[in-house]
Amino acid sequence: MPLLRSWVESANAPDHPFPLNNLPCGVFSMPGGDPRCGVAIGDFVLDVAGLEEAGLVALSGGPFLDVPFWNDLMEAGPAVWAALRDRLTALLAEGAAERAAVAPFLVPLAGATLHMPFLVSEYTDFYAGRHHATNVGTMFRGAENALPPNWLHIPIGYNGRASSVVVSGTPVRRPWGQLKGPEDAAPRFAPSARFDIELELGAVVGLPSEGPVTVAEADAMIFGYVLLNDWSARDIQAWEYQPLGPFQAKATATTISPWIVTRAALEPFRTSTPAREKPLLPYLHEPRPMLYDIALEVGLTPEGGTETVIARTNYAEMYYSAAQQLAHHTTCGCPMNTGDLLGSGTISGPTKDSRGSLLELSWGGKEPIVIAGGSRSFIEDNDTLTLRGWCRGDGYTIGFGDCSGKVLPALEDPYART
Amino acid sequence: MPLLRSWVESANAPDHPFPLNNLPCGVFSMPGGDPRCGVAIGDFVLDVAGLEEAGLVALSGGPFLDVPFWNDLMEAGPAVWAALRDRLTALLAEGAAERAAVAPFLVPLAGATLHMPFLVSEYTDFYAGRHHATNVGTMFRGAENALPPNWLHIPIGYNGRASSVVVSGTPVRRPWGQLKGPEDAAPRFAPSARFDIELELGAVVGLPSEGPVTVAEADAMIFGYVLLNDWSARDIQAWEYQPLGPFQAKATATTISPWIVTRAALEPFRTSTPAREKPLLPYLHEPRPMLYDIALEVGLTPEGGTETVIARTNYAEMYYSAAQQLAHHTTCGCPMNTGDLLGSGTISGPTKDSRGSLLELSWGGKEPIVIAGGSRSFIEDNDTLTLRGWCRGDGYTIGFGDCSGKVLPALEDPYART
Repeated sequence: MPLLRSWVESANAPDHPFPLNNLPCGVFSMPGGDPRCGVAIGDFVLDVAGLEEAGLVALSGGPFLDVPFWNDLMEAGPAVWAALRDRLTALLAEGAAERAAVAPFLVPLAGATLHMPFLVSEYTDFYAGRHHATNVGTMFRGAENALPPNWLHIPIGYNGRASSVVVSGTPVRRPWGQLKGPEDAAPRFAPSARFDIELELGAVVGLPSEGPVTVAEADAMIFGYVLLNDWSARDIQAWEYQPLGPFQAKATATTISPWIVTRAALEPFRTSTPAREKPLLPYLHEPRPMLYDIALEVGLTPEGGTETVIARTNYAEMYYSAAQQLAHHTTCGCPMNTGDLLGSGTISGPTKDSRGSLLELSWGGKEPIVIAGGSRSFIEDNDTLTLRGWCRGDGYTIGFGDCSGKVLPALEDPYART
Repeated sequence: MPLLRSWVESANAPDHPFPLNNLPCGVFSMPGGDPRCGVAIGDFVLDVAGLEEAGLVALSGGPFLDVPFWNDLMEAGPAVWAALRDRLTALLAEGAAERAAVAPFLVPLAGATLHMPFLVSEYTDFYAGRHHATNVGTMFRGAENALPPNWLHIPIGYNGRASSVVVSGTPVRRPWGQLKGPEDAAPRFAPSARFDIELELGAVVGLPSEGPVTVAEADAMIFGYVLLNDWSARDIQAWEYQPLGPFQAKATATTISPWIVTRAALEPFRTSTPAREKPLLPYLHEPRPMLYDIALEVGLTPEGGTETVIARTNYAEMYYSAAQQLAHHTTCGCPMNTGDLLGSGTISGPTKDSRGSLLELSWGGKEPIVIAGGSRSFIEDNDTLTLRGWCRGDGYTIGFGDCSGKVLPALEDPYART
């Protein structure tokens, strides 16, 4: 598919993240205004809540956009998602008759504040990157036991904490926690000294389900994708995670990018999961390619310093797709709801500079990485970490918008007030 | 505290679960009617939504009871909780002047359908029973490694799946899942053959929090408690749980009792956690007794058969209290919300007949237990499992109401329709 040309001129630049082919869904506010649903187009946000109110967008069963989140529209299902996309494509296309009526609903992106694009119902995080699982497994359990015996059969996942999901730009406070280093005789309560990122893609469930669904059905339930940084306190994690998995190490914050890039926008970029080392059970078979070719990078910017890109990788590195993960999630009859968020697991490539966490990049702190003006083993106070992602089409780019967070110093003592 | 006598005569019987001292909060409907908030008193449900509508209950900042769940009232905080309890106690007390006005709002409990008493925001399950952790650890990892090194320092918990929480009486379908027995060369997709219960108490968070809270603050955030059965597929669990914890094994259903017994009603039954084998870090210190003396039992009834009580134990057996668990939950800055549900972990006592799961009672299936007319290693199709709990006061009983579920046979093949 080539670039779809728009009368919003900035959207036609081949490198712009928000061409007419994209139309990602977010929630924005202007100074003094309330948050409302919007769609990014070029250098603007299109106030789609306003368009619906004005009757320029009329969706069967609506209104869906009169609330400051996309859940109502997502719950309405794929026919409504397609109708909205078709209508917006027509309204914004070069030569559209409605240009004069629509133009007043464009506001400059630069002046907008972006909010959480949807209400997160529940958050599940997976562990589906083979390079990541092998790297972390080697560090935590030795090379012999790096990949657990179930890993090539199950998209391993665990439930995370939805209340901790925040939108890009929200500062993240370095957590305190119970931890015990290999040298410590007893556990301590202290600020995490090994605070880290995890570069992930998040799948947003649009359609709810009851009972087990197939991979194809799961794919159809997904409304879109966001970038996702699953902040992780490695020292808390190492002490707490056995036998029941990560808990407080992962609940300080999970940052997502502000725009949901719809599955429709990603269609041209489908690609297959890699060859299976061991055959999967039939319920995990993919009827067609379910990953996407999405280039990813992580930037680290110290306070007042220059950004260094510390990792470059691609979502196509994953061993399991979001559709496989979602299908597995339903096998036991677990009900899935509109607004459920599924983290892909850390996306690491095969090379040193394609690893999606500092734990891997610095090999547990043993090999600090070089950044502009210094080095890093883990995140230092006031560092800003930014995830970026994009697909390259034929003369256009599908961008996700930055997924960024600055790490503030830990509180002096969280119990001092008591 | 002695029995508080009510003009609702049935509430004055010393064995009745719902005396005036209790006033547990639920949601009920009558045939043809919509669900609404109610409080149990003797053999009746008091339609408190109706009382508020009629002005007989007027709470500052209200109305809170005009919705079919208790979340709005819970979010209003302890002063409103106390005001409601005081007002209902006055309206229902022997000799109350308002008796004639209130009586029309009583409906027979026998004719009411009970619904979920609150919207579950997120669900966390803990692992805080020492006998249970020791038993399960011995079976899964051997007696030497039974209790993980962190267990005496951290109230170990993991995030569960809120969407799977159902109210007592909801049938539970035996799940399919990916599993691999010790004899199997490769994993299979099959119905769970080792489906089990976990006898737990659930703490219901009323007040939300941001940032770390102390144990005393955590206690004050808890609105009340329910019985909780964390249904568990042991064969799915054994294969999936490493390294990131239980996932599909625990997401088929979690059943709770229909009445939230308030913390206020439980005050007379406070008791201390046991002596610490290792000192706890200061953030986990309890300023006063935080467990409760709650007698518990589990009944198993085969289809058309007679119930056998298969376990008797007490909530006072726990090593960590809900207040400690909630405080630990917040250490990393994890925001807690109204409607969060915290499972205590399986409550097993020191003796064979006080174990809170079939896994422990039958020692992994090796020692089937005897029931009326048969034996059991794990749950068989059409068995009904019922948890019960009560506190014995001075001439009265605080009951929780049954927490019951019947296990239906697995679907023939969940993917047959595709």
